[in-house]
Amino acid sequence: MEIKIVSVSVPQGSNVVIGQTHFIKSAEDLYEVMATHAQGAEFGIAFSEASGPCLIRREGNCDELEKAAADACMAIGAGHIFVLIMRKAYPISVLNAIKVVQEVCNVFCATANPLGVVVAEADGRRGVLGVIDGDAPKGVESDADRESRKAFLRKIGYKR
Amino acid sequence: MEIKIVSVSVPQGSNVVIGQTHFIKSAEDLYEVMATHAQGAEFGIAFSEASGPCLIRREGNCDELEKAAADACMAIGAGHIFVLIMRKAYPISVLNAIKVVQEVCNVFCATANPLGVVVAEADGRRGVLGVIDGDAPKGVESDADRESRKAFLRKIGYKR
Amino acid sequence: MEIKIVSVSVPQGSNVVIGQTHFIKSAEDLYEVMATHAQGAEFGIAFSEASGPCLIRREGNCDELEKAAADACMAIGAGHIFVLIMRKAYPISVLNAIKVVQEVCNVFCATANPLGVVVAEADGRRGVLGVIDGDAPKGVESDADRESRKAFLRKIGYKR
Amino acid sequence: MEIKIVSVSVPQGSNVVIGQTHFIKSAEDLYEVMATHAQGAEFGIAFSEASGPCLIRREGNCDELEKAAADACMAIGAGHIFVLIMRKAYPISVLNAIKVVQEVCNVFCATANPLGVVVAEADGRRGVLGVIDGDAPKGVESDADRESRKAFLRKIGYKR
Amino acid sequence: MEIKIVSVSVPQGSNVVIGQTHFIKSAEDLYEVMATHAQGAEFGIAFSEASGPCLIRREGNCDELEKAAADACMAIGAGHIFVLIMRKAYPISVLNAIKVVQEVCNVFCATANPLGVVVAEADGRRGVLGVIDGDAPKGVESDADRESRKAFLRKIGYKR
Amino acid sequence: MEIKIVSVSVPQGSNVVIGQTHFIKSAEDLYEVMATHAQGAEFGIAFSEASGPCLIRREGNCDELEKAAADACMAIGAGHIFVLIMRKAYPISVLNAIKVVQEVCNVFCATANPLGVVVAEADGRRGVLGVIDGDAPKGVESDADRESRKAFLRKIGYKR
Repeated sequence: MEIKIVSVSVPQGSNVVIGQTHFIKSAEDLYEVMATHAQGAEFGIAFSEASGPCLIRREGNCDELEKAAADACMAIGAGHIFVLIMRKAYPISVLNAIKVVQEVCNVFCATANPLGVVVAEADGRRGVLGVIDGDAPKGVESDADRESRKAFLRKIGYKR
Repeated sequence: MEIKIVSVSVPQGSNVVIGQTHFIKSAEDLYEVMATHAQGAEFGIAFSEASGPCLIRREGNCDELEKAAADACMAIGAGHIFVLIMRKAYPISVLNAIKVVQEVCNVFCATANPLGVVVAEADGRRGVLGVIDGDAPKGVESDADRESRKAFLRKIGYKR
Repeated sequence: MEIKIVSVSVPQGSNVVIGQTHFIKSAEDLYEVMATHAQGAEFGIAFSEASGPCLIRREGNCDELEKAAADACMAIGAGHIFVLIMRKAYPISVLNAIKVVQEVCNVFCATANPLGVVVAEADGRRGVLGVIDGDAPKGVESDADRESRKAFLRKIGYKR
Repeated sequence: MEIKIVSVSVPQGSNVVIGQTHFIKSAEDLYEVMATHAQGAEFGIAFSEASGPCLIRREGNCDELEKAAADACMAIGAGHIFVLIMRKAYPISVLNAIKVVQEVCNVFCATANPLGVVVAEADGRRGVLGVIDGDAPKGVESDADRESRKAFLRKIGYKR
Repeated sequence: MEIKIVSVSVPQGSNVVIGQTHFIKSAEDLYEVMATHAQGAEFGIAFSEASGPCLIRREGNCDELEKAAADACMAIGAGHIFVLIMRKAYPISVLNAIKVVQEVCNVFCATANPLGVVVAEADGRRGVLGVIDGDAPKGVESDADRESRKAFLRKIGYKR
Repeated sequence: MEIKIVSVSVPQGSNVVIGQTHFIKSAEDLYEVMATHAQGAEFGIAFSEASGPCLIRREGNCDELEKAAADACMAIGAGHIFVLIMRKAYPISVLNAIKVVQEVCNVFCATANPLGVVVAEADGRRGVLGVIDGDAPKGVESDADRESRKAFLRKIGYKR
């Protein structure tokens, strides 16, 4: 067995959500979540079928992002993984809807950061172990940092 | 620390769901989810208590599957893991109910594929890192593949 | 790439929940979940911002637990992780509320056991792969063990 | 304004779920919930479109139940109502899945009892106010009744 | 048909939650939600069985509140209703857990206010139409009222 | 007791969601749901406090819609009701997020139709019994109508 890091880079200004599901139906279901919960968004979805034809299944409303999702999913190379890339929308708007899709097992990450996906490989088959999502923490926030953080969230309107 | 792959094979025609929970109560709660959400199913559940007597706790309505779940859970050997094996039912029917069981932390997989569970072992204690669920993807679906996929889901009645 | 185990020890009598989220807002949102769902609890929350200032963001109603959470989060050193330590409350009371926080991707564990967090490190950046939560299972419960287990859950009132 | 009771009777051995939704898409979405969560069930679904052509939209996998649902929905005569009738399945297996359908506002009842739907009518338009679901209570259970109740639920396997 | 108001008064310092469910199992399930999500709370639960023996089913950890719940449920007199009365806990801590109980259809109210339950009665059978929960609004808040409201929620710690 | 219909009309192009909650905190929580789940939307929220000062509490990012929500809430005149009016967003995108707000009891409707809210009034206090949401159904769809419906949902991209 070998453990490797697969770099996932997404088009400028987009976010990526990666998770584990259990059936081919999740490609369409994730499409419908995006279509109804993230109006105005551009997105692409890929799912790695893990038996039979073993194809990367793909959906989306934007060819560029659909191709980026399929490429990332192929590079990760693990079975039953989905990769969702979105633009003009943020994961915070759709993550709860994704988590209750009936085939979704879990979500590894939702991020716009540089991303490394840690995979285990054995006998030509792979599984995702986890993700390296952005940079390491540099220190603990001070009370002043806390105030800035709270002010920022209120400025963008996410907190009241 | 050592990283190993534990092969999990389930009885013909069955599916397995593996996850992390936080309390012994999850054995009974998962039983009740299966009893009420997958009527007519046969199933076995195992949970690895991780303190005190450290027993594999087990529930189910089918001795064979209960034993298979306990064996798989013992082979994985990590604390606070559950293994659920079902027959005459599919994970798609129960996965959302499992995800909202109050002790469930996450679900690693739900699959009928050959399965390798990747574990880290140190000082005789283990944790699950991820799963190798079925085969690697071989390529990206064509437009014709997409139509076949959609037709298949409509033929089995899962999509309208 | 290197794989390491980070030991997380929490103050006597407390439980820890560790998960992956996707945005700085989760610090306040997890605070509100604890304040409204675990009345009377003491708790501390830390979140590792993974871009820009890369600070450990912190919230809580108890300085000791807030510091313990920040220390554990810094020791884990991965991006977009949260650590929640609680006392006078149990994860079973709040875990479902945590799972539906809109930025939470997944929950690695909820435990009072000795805990090892398995991390992958590359180029000074880290990701959580999984957890070693308590001790390994020692055997499968007998029918008598099962009865004791069920009696215990009814004695503490969790099952009826 | 007038307040009336509409009697809803369902085919022998079936259960009915009635609720309020907000969009025509709910007909297909409820179909998919039944198809994936109640395998082996027969069912019919009706939804009362409340603008434009104002048609009773219908889905299902059983003509008899689809017609029964459409008839009940037409008799109720309120806008944005759904009626779901199922056989060889029980509401307990699908109710949580129905509640998270993205267009569902609320669920008035899920029952096999004789049912009266209370509607308000004004200017030819109607709304559901509530349901009369089965018979009135006759008294409070004794301790012995409680034991019988608990034993019954364990005998049918719903509680452990 | 007659429409009546049933006054529900609860013991000093307690809150009441009233809803519609579809099966006798909900009595135990609501008990387990309270036992695990509202630690330290006193509570009583009643459920009005609507077929067969038509008994008020009751659960709880406090005789006074169990009796109060049964009395209120009997006074309401509708089928498939639950009444939950709690003390030393607030509905905000348990309402989401109640909403996902698998037999719960909907929740009419959660309140400490004087409460009138509006019921329709026909042929000796009743249904709940709605609730009159507390006093009517007297006016719209000013900007100063808004600031006081926000300050209050932060003072009690519910908002950050 | 008197039963009345309160007409609710919303500004051109907007939708309204009305529900029952149990605490003043819901005004801010609903604001945060809209801010994070319906990016780009304009909205106003009103909540009718039912004890103490009994004020219509209001939030929003658009004065016109905040005023419209407060006016509708005042006209309905029942305690513990919320009214949410949105523009440039549809309820389908936010309804599940609203249903899991921790103080929300239920949702009466989500609609752009002409709306009548049926209220019971006694001793100057009111409760919502239900809604008359749009027009009455005129007939059952034919097979051709069904095909048009399905085609329409696929044309707007909501179904795949």
